[in-house]
Amino acid sequence: MLDDSGRFDEFSLACGEGGAPRLFLDFSRQRARRETLRLLAGFADARRLEAWRSALFDGEIVNLSEARPALHTDARAPEPRDPILSLERKRVSEFAARFRSGQWPGAQGRPLARVVNIGIGGSDLGVRLLCSALAAAEAPRVDFVSEMDGVELERVLSGAVPEETLFVVCSKSFTTTETLANAYAARHWLVSRLGQDAPARHFAGVSSNAGAMSGWGIRPEMQFRIPEGVGGRYSVWSAAGLSAWLALGSGQMGDFLVGAAALDRHFLIAPLARNLPVLMALFALWNQSLLGSSAHLLLPYDTRLGMLPAYLQQLELESLGKSADAQGRPLSVEGVAALLGTTGSSAQHSIMQWAQQAARPVTADFIAARDAAGAYPNMRAESLRQMMAQAEALARGLPSSAMAPDPLATQKALPGGRSSSVLLLETLDARNLGALLALYEHKVFAQAVLLGINPFDQWGVEHAKRLVADRTSQPPLASVLGD
Amino acid sequence: MLDDSGRFDEFSLACGEGGAPRLFLDFSRQRARRETLRLLAGFADARRLEAWRSALFDGEIVNLSEARPALHTDARAPEPRDPILSLERKRVSEFAARFRSGQWPGAQGRPLARVVNIGIGGSDLGVRLLCSALAAAEAPRVDFVSEMDGVELERVLSGAVPEETLFVVCSKSFTTTETLANAYAARHWLVSRLGQDAPARHFAGVSSNAGAMSGWGIRPEMQFRIPEGVGGRYSVWSAAGLSAWLALGSGQMGDFLVGAAALDRHFLIAPLARNLPVLMALFALWNQSLLGSSAHLLLPYDTRLGMLPAYLQQLELESLGKSADAQGRPLSVEGVAALLGTTGSSAQHSIMQWAQQAARPVTADFIAARDAAGAYPNMRAESLRQMMAQAEALARGLPSSAMAPDPLATQKALPGGRSSSVLLLETLDARNLGALLALYEHKVFAQAVLLGINPFDQWGVEHAKRLVADRTSQPPLASVLGD
Repeated sequence: MLDDSGRFDEFSLACGEGGAPRLFLDFSRQRARRETLRLLAGFADARRLEAWRSALFDGEIVNLSEARPALHTDARAPEPRDPILSLERKRVSEFAARFRSGQWPGAQGRPLARVVNIGIGGSDLGVRLLCSALAAAEAPRVDFVSEMDGVELERVLSGAVPEETLFVVCSKSFTTTETLANAYAARHWLVSRLGQDAPARHFAGVSSNAGAMSGWGIRPEMQFRIPEGVGGRYSVWSAAGLSAWLALGSGQMGDFLVGAAALDRHFLIAPLARNLPVLMALFALWNQSLLGSSAHLLLPYDTRLGMLPAYLQQLELESLGKSADAQGRPLSVEGVAALLGTTGSSAQHSIMQWAQQAARPVTADFIAARDAAGAYPNMRAESLRQMMAQAEALARGLPSSAMAPDPLATQKALPGGRSSSVLLLETLDARNLGALLALYEHKVFAQAVLLGINPFDQWGVEHAKRLVADRTSQPPLASVLGD
Repeated sequence: MLDDSGRFDEFSLACGEGGAPRLFLDFSRQRARRETLRLLAGFADARRLEAWRSALFDGEIVNLSEARPALHTDARAPEPRDPILSLERKRVSEFAARFRSGQWPGAQGRPLARVVNIGIGGSDLGVRLLCSALAAAEAPRVDFVSEMDGVELERVLSGAVPEETLFVVCSKSFTTTETLANAYAARHWLVSRLGQDAPARHFAGVSSNAGAMSGWGIRPEMQFRIPEGVGGRYSVWSAAGLSAWLALGSGQMGDFLVGAAALDRHFLIAPLARNLPVLMALFALWNQSLLGSSAHLLLPYDTRLGMLPAYLQQLELESLGKSADAQGRPLSVEGVAALLGTTGSSAQHSIMQWAQQAARPVTADFIAARDAAGAYPNMRAESLRQMMAQAEALARGLPSSAMAPDPLATQKALPGGRSSSVLLLETLDARNLGALLALYEHKVFAQAVLLGINPFDQWGVEHAKRLVADRTSQPPLASVLGD
């Protein structure tokens, strides 16, 4: 199929506005013919994907088990319909502007200039990704605390300057055990250095639970709310992105929302067979349920996207990692395959051996920015050549017959026939990063519709929390090492 | 099985010296009975694991396709038999001592005090893991460059001080494309700041290819050699650990080798049925080949072990990710399942939803240090309680009948029956980290013997390199975005 000269044009798609493509998907190495695409698009139609898509954007109850809408597209709309989203975006933007211009004094009168984000999961990964992808060297420093092991907090605080540090405590419920434990310890640290009154000026909160923030002692002007309808792993567009606003400013964050909203429009109006997230969802289903792929790789060829695999692991595995559909019936196919990845050069010296030779097929998304910006355009070009070589090797393989006299030929052979897509950004900037994250969000939504899954709940997470709360049923931690 | 009161004692094992356990494995949540263990140990016997184990330690040719021994255990032996390993350990130790005491002047006479490690795969992940796990706040700073995208190098150099920076270029062959591209660019950066003669004082090299190091301009006294028989992903014990020696010093690095050597003795002398790495290998095979596990999770409940999943992904997936055995016959079972992981608290808010509820079973290693060291022992204790709750939920599940009146019961149910082990370190120090890495190395070796795989070659990596070198067969990078 790959040697068909017309295939690349037919099996690729650009997305952008006014003739200016910003995102480009090359799916010519998917193991599919034209007829496959037609049948897959027909399946999406039969699953009423267009109706579900409308329901998502219209704010209908698409999270059936929790009886909520899913407001993440509203959270990045030019004019959100939800009054909390609309108001809080303005407040976050103004707070960030004051902070960034040195006009938010701490308890000692010195302007706050550094940030410690305390949150976990959706209150951590999105802002981490944004800061590591887009923050300039001179941007306000943001450190992150999510683990509850005490070590991460200790490491961050050991380098912190109390007089200058703003703590952002982000928890949708404001009851998250890990986040509150770290927040209490950080408050204690601050009080012991700057006194009892300092936290009021050094702690901001982000939550849907204003009462809990007030109860915790966060001043109203430093409270930022997210509506119930924005799920944690879909929340970076809302006030949960506060730490990124502080690091990047309203210009970049505005672009980030604009890029996502542009992808929203594409998802909403493009026909299913020419719709980027729909195609990606269909290929995911095709590969894992029908071609037997055991795992899917996310391979960004860019240091700036080093956090992307972890961000997308949460989005995909938490949304689709279910064994029952939205009616409670057992799924007849797997919801989502194992998902892993790392930056491209490193992957080539680690997991790609397995991807190229393992017995069960592995599929991949190769992700890169085409811009040659930066001081080393030649290295960047060579890196993208390596990326294409990996995609070709996955697809074409290497038959042992091609090495016939070599006694090791069967050990050196590559099976080939492994599907991958190449996703190119025109440049890696805030706008295109917004589009990239929205693309995967809608891919997950479309995949959930195809499977009949509710992608917005997470009952598997809830049960383990209850087990911890029930202190009578605790298994012993190994006592052999001496307790 | 879990409610059998004698099970925990029988399905757990400590390892240490002189009655002082340092590593402890709780495998009571593996889906196995006493009879299963007996049969699995018998299988290891039938595969001649003891003979292979002796061959490994005796320096015989165990890497059949490349006709080499595997010298990583010799590299950490108290007195290595290999003369290169023996000599270079002393030289690395002395060089590190001079560097750390400020007695290695740069081109301008100022002592070198910071390190940039340029390497990839096995020349990167091990030293990264060691530094992030063990370096004290006051240790010499080490930055790492592995990606060939130009961005990582630019970020590292933008914060570097040329007069104080030692570059360590680590590549076994000294021909690795990514590493040499970054090294050339770093040398250019240094020359443009400190002049033509500076690189001779600021660049150290680690390789098995002394000629290439000399040709590149590295002075003999700054060249450190690794023997051919030490594979990249097994090389952190050799001179490839140089950057960790510079950051941690000979005391900690000596302990690191001692801990690994102690685990080597355990692997070599313990009977198969009471041998930690052998048990872990048998469970891996049992879970993925016979119980249908689709993926395995590595979950360190400790920020210091944040790099461990990436390190072990290389070790496991590159060693076992093959579809043919060492005789070139197709494997009848999968060599290794998908392997992924992240620190524990974060995992609970991300991939654990999938692990607890996905249709196909997922298995896990929970890894933690039992020490309550640090400023926040209560948080640490709570974190380990959460770890045990996750292991219990994987094993016991949550039947929908337990929630019967709840209309969402079938969506909230957890299937259970998912195997996991808990691996506890007495403390997380250099010695026990050495033992931990050696444990996984021998687990991989034992698994390779059980499968008949050669864990020391990587033909899948080699082919993609050749594709890049062959510039005539390059597929076009998408031209739609405008070239």
